[in-house]
Amino acid sequence: MELASLFSPRSIALIGASANKAKLGWQILNKLRQSHLPIFPINPHESQIANTRAYPSILDVPDPVDLAIVVVPAPIVNVVVKQAAEKKVKSIVVISAGFSETGPQGKKLEIVLKKLCRKQQINLLGPNVLGFANPAKKLDITFAKTAPMPGNIGLISQSGAIGAYLFDWAKSENLGFSKFVSLGNRAGLTETDFLTFLSADPDTKVIGLYLESFADGQKFLSITSRLSRKKPIVAIFGGQSPVGKQAVLSHTAALSPETAVIKTALAQAGCIQADNLEAFTDLLEIFSLEPPLIDNDLVIVTNAGGPGILAADKADAVRLKVERPTDVRGDALAEQFNTAFRQVIKDKIKDAFLIILTPQTMTQLELTCQAVVKQFKHIKKPIVVSLLGGEITAKAKEILRKNRIATIDFPQKAVDYLSILFQYWHNRLKQTAYPVRQSSLIKVPGLRLQPGQQTWQQIKILAKAYHLPLVATKIVKENSLLQLIKEFGFPLVLKADPTEALHRTEKKALFLNLNSAKTVQKYFNQLKSRFTTILIQPQIRSGHELFIGVKRPPSFPPLLTIGSGGIYTEIYQDVGHTFLPVNKTSALKLLAQTKLGQILQGARGLPPTNLRPVIDLILNVSQLALNFPQIEEININPAIINQNKVDIVDIKISAYEETPRRL
Amino acid sequence: MELASLFSPRSIALIGASANKAKLGWQILNKLRQSHLPIFPINPHESQIANTRAYPSILDVPDPVDLAIVVVPAPIVNVVVKQAAEKKVKSIVVISAGFSETGPQGKKLEIVLKKLCRKQQINLLGPNVLGFANPAKKLDITFAKTAPMPGNIGLISQSGAIGAYLFDWAKSENLGFSKFVSLGNRAGLTETDFLTFLSADPDTKVIGLYLESFADGQKFLSITSRLSRKKPIVAIFGGQSPVGKQAVLSHTAALSPETAVIKTALAQAGCIQADNLEAFTDLLEIFSLEPPLIDNDLVIVTNAGGPGILAADKADAVRLKVERPTDVRGDALAEQFNTAFRQVIKDKIKDAFLIILTPQTMTQLELTCQAVVKQFKHIKKPIVVSLLGGEITAKAKEILRKNRIATIDFPQKAVDYLSILFQYWHNRLKQTAYPVRQSSLIKVPGLRLQPGQQTWQQIKILAKAYHLPLVATKIVKENSLLQLIKEFGFPLVLKADPTEALHRTEKKALFLNLNSAKTVQKYFNQLKSRFTTILIQPQIRSGHELFIGVKRPPSFPPLLTIGSGGIYTEIYQDVGHTFLPVNKTSALKLLAQTKLGQILQGARGLPPTNLRPVIDLILNVSQLALNFPQIEEININPAIINQNKVDIVDIKISAYEETPRRL
Repeated sequence: MELASLFSPRSIALIGASANKAKLGWQILNKLRQSHLPIFPINPHESQIANTRAYPSILDVPDPVDLAIVVVPAPIVNVVVKQAAEKKVKSIVVISAGFSETGPQGKKLEIVLKKLCRKQQINLLGPNVLGFANPAKKLDITFAKTAPMPGNIGLISQSGAIGAYLFDWAKSENLGFSKFVSLGNRAGLTETDFLTFLSADPDTKVIGLYLESFADGQKFLSITSRLSRKKPIVAIFGGQSPVGKQAVLSHTAALSPETAVIKTALAQAGCIQADNLEAFTDLLEIFSLEPPLIDNDLVIVTNAGGPGILAADKADAVRLKVERPTDVRGDALAEQFNTAFRQVIKDKIKDAFLIILTPQTMTQLELTCQAVVKQFKHIKKPIVVSLLGGEITAKAKEILRKNRIATIDFPQKAVDYLSILFQYWHNRLKQTAYPVRQSSLIKVPGLRLQPGQQTWQQIKILAKAYHLPLVATKIVKENSLLQLIKEFGFPLVLKADPTEALHRTEKKALFLNLNSAKTVQKYFNQLKSRFTTILIQPQIRSGHELFIGVKRPPSFPPLLTIGSGGIYTEIYQDVGHTFLPVNKTSALKLLAQTKLGQILQGARGLPPTNLRPVIDLILNVSQLALNFPQIEEININPAIINQNKVDIVDIKISAYEETPRRL
Repeated sequence: MELASLFSPRSIALIGASANKAKLGWQILNKLRQSHLPIFPINPHESQIANTRAYPSILDVPDPVDLAIVVVPAPIVNVVVKQAAEKKVKSIVVISAGFSETGPQGKKLEIVLKKLCRKQQINLLGPNVLGFANPAKKLDITFAKTAPMPGNIGLISQSGAIGAYLFDWAKSENLGFSKFVSLGNRAGLTETDFLTFLSADPDTKVIGLYLESFADGQKFLSITSRLSRKKPIVAIFGGQSPVGKQAVLSHTAALSPETAVIKTALAQAGCIQADNLEAFTDLLEIFSLEPPLIDNDLVIVTNAGGPGILAADKADAVRLKVERPTDVRGDALAEQFNTAFRQVIKDKIKDAFLIILTPQTMTQLELTCQAVVKQFKHIKKPIVVSLLGGEITAKAKEILRKNRIATIDFPQKAVDYLSILFQYWHNRLKQTAYPVRQSSLIKVPGLRLQPGQQTWQQIKILAKAYHLPLVATKIVKENSLLQLIKEFGFPLVLKADPTEALHRTEKKALFLNLNSAKTVQKYFNQLKSRFTTILIQPQIRSGHELFIGVKRPPSFPPLLTIGSGGIYTEIYQDVGHTFLPVNKTSALKLLAQTKLGQILQGARGLPPTNLRPVIDLILNVSQLALNFPQIEEININPAIINQNKVDIVDIKISAYEETPRRL
């Protein structure tokens, strides 16, 4: 997608330009004129707007037009877009609202608009867009009080207000933006188009991404997982709570996905996840200002014992290497700091520096910051200054900002951000591109699924085909009971078929630890009175319980979840997620994310378990899910892991009631 | 302890006053003169300092002296303190350094100083004190660039720099301090004295506490757990990492305790724990400005969709009730805000308000903040404003600060702090005073312990006396092996006596799941070749594994830890801690803190377990630890919990090698 015509157009038509100062058509015209580009106001009722010649339609413009910006009311948007297409514009931005965010009527208009632009191969941004900008070209169609200054942050946002806030913040911090785009309804261009563009844009050093939904999950994974190796992408996601999801729906007409999907998608795409707006903001500052940090040897210099200790504690917690802080003492003058700076810089092994400054009687705030600038500005290693205090520190902060040295108010936060900087640069080339090449390639033709829950009989056939090691389980009838007791031995388990009781504990459809023929008979009778198909299996006595599940979140590939099984699944929330497919390497990585994986690998002096059967099981379950797009959900809980084998105690598989969905 | 003579003295002698402007003795004199109190400089070589008459010794001062401040070199401190005692001063502050923080020589001086003041019943603050202040009385002996302004925050700190930072921050935020004290070496007054004083001080609304060690753990628990019901105490603790602990040692000559001890002590004392300096600062602001918040119905009003959604997500995460944010839209003028404010205030059920303001084109920042002041200032419910942005928001923030309305830059943080405000006020009267009255009162005279690890034989005697339900376990010899196999049945466990192999897994001194006479014999022979005393017990097949441990951290009562047992103890870190004693209520509370407790109470539709035997076990173990001060450590791992019983599989008890310590 060629987005130069959007961000660096040679000429712009504003369709819906207005002479009425209260109207958006006037405000935007005014903003466009700052770019010194040829601007063509379009308005059928005016021949001149604000000293510029206006045209009745874009088709009347004598010169070629790269970009059309549309602010006319929704019902006539498609009319003017058709004309713009005829005029061969390359990009169209539809600012106008009144589309899918308003209901089915608007949705219809949006579909027409989308098809129109796609057919003509026009870049469509919008509709319902809250601004975009290329500050270096003085192109600024934003609705913020403070215009975005030029700089190296590329910002993609599903919220215009996030832009308004960041522009003003960045100006105060002497930072700026390479490009800004608010995504709107994403009928044409989406976040992946802008991520692709910005990651190749030489003016962009770091990308900020605020999302409330993914335009296309699968595409996001495969594109972003490659781009994130090139440039840091700092991401924040709104709408994870029930109330937040409701608000998203009214805000951008989009459904916010579940938290596990969001976190897994951002992680698998290699994004740096910011938990809150403050971390998002500060991380953009850090990545905008700092050079790469490949190793983790941190130096702390401070005139404050307490804050230095807190920073050292934090460094330990986030696994940065740090020695005892260099404490120049509370009465240190700038010269003492300077000497300490020279000393620590000499040590070529050190990778990053944190200076903590508190305003004590003797402290020379400005002079000390000048010393910081002089000593650190040219050494090309990350340096962050924490200037603790209020107004008294303002001038000193200004010195640092002017010289593009990062200031983070609190030392513990500064340490946290440096560790994130380190993690990104240290690991970025290990980032795995999605999708990985599959390891298991089982294909068994002729297998069929019924809609809804599968019976145990059907599960058995699938399990055999996909080498899933089910515990010997049989359907038991009155007349075969004794025979099966003899065959299996004690202890035994009785349970109803999954189609009859999905949640067996709640439905009293499961009896464990049956140790005599009498109790087996008793519970068999009990089950028989309520259920048709009763299953019997030997009870596995010991081993680690594993959970494996597969779900299909909308617009994403199947999501595989593994973790501690049995009652531990929900209580400990010890789970790891990944989108399918998986291979041996990614399955091992996934397992290692869980505490169960650490136990299996031999934590606490226990002998490590042979992981081969566990990995095979994960791969084969994944293959099963991928081969049958009609599978809605698979739940294996528990599979029991012992030294050299795995036994699946229970599997549930459900299929969609209707036609299979797109994989 | 009567501290009025320290914070509000009627007269002050400065021992070590100096005419040399480079000296502390001059700087402090200068600061003291701002108080307009009678000040008596003491210096044997000067008769006049800075236009004030000086005296050769405090004994030469004709008037009575309430407070003596000492800045003479360490070796002569005790000489002048003796004179001050003779003069009947009520409080002494020793600013001078050179005591226990410098080594054994200084430690000796400090002990003399301590005894001297104790004998004369003089309040001693210090030595090695970095300042104290009562800003309302213009009494300010601090070494910060910005003097503390009067206000309602009482600050107790083991770091002077924390004060220097907070004074300047508070001034910028229009906040101030009732009292400030830096603790120094705590030879006399300690944090509990100041906590007691400040919680009764009518000028203090919230107490801030920065510590790197506890002067006396047991005292801290019993005093603070009562005080925290009266006033909020916001606490932060430095020196939790190995590097941080080292730095503490050089900073304040104190040993920083382990993280579990710190967290449990602060929690049991009812302190509000701040994880970092930013939270510490912001929580002081919130508690300083806001009225109590007893219920949790939060309203969010915003002109920004994205930030509003992020705030709602956060509210959900911290369990504040919140409906969809009231979104007045990006183009809202102050009047739209005003209308929304009136609307939400009308709803009497709402308890707290968060206003989020982003600088968009139409936004009237100052006018909107004036509307906030007008509408909310007098309603006596917590209100926080998040003004997102940089310089452009400065004037609007100033309006809020002047009117004492809390501003927290980021909406998610604001929500977090409001939830902490709610938790404090909602729960403060439920805070349990330490120590609780014990429930178990077992006393068995005549029992003895040997130093070091106890043998199984001794453990058995203790277990019987304290009703600890040990699994039937016997010492097995070659000739009793078959007999015991018959007695216990399979599966069986063989292990070495705890005195011979403390960590049995590592030492290969434990064999589980032995299912035949042949394997039992085989492993018995193996053990026999390496160990003297071999134990045999039946293997418990199922149930939940519980860990119970007791340790004695220095200066604290015994610390009881319970949690998931077996391999889960370390992997899941699912533990709860409390200082002894416990009673039924506190044991139940402790259990409920763990995930294991949730399982036992019937999570996931499982039938709840009878908790009686578990609670009894906890109480009896605690009693055992309390009755024997010479017990260094008890480890029960695991005890196996089933429906109506608990079986202890393994206990280890170690006793101190030397004389019993103070309980």
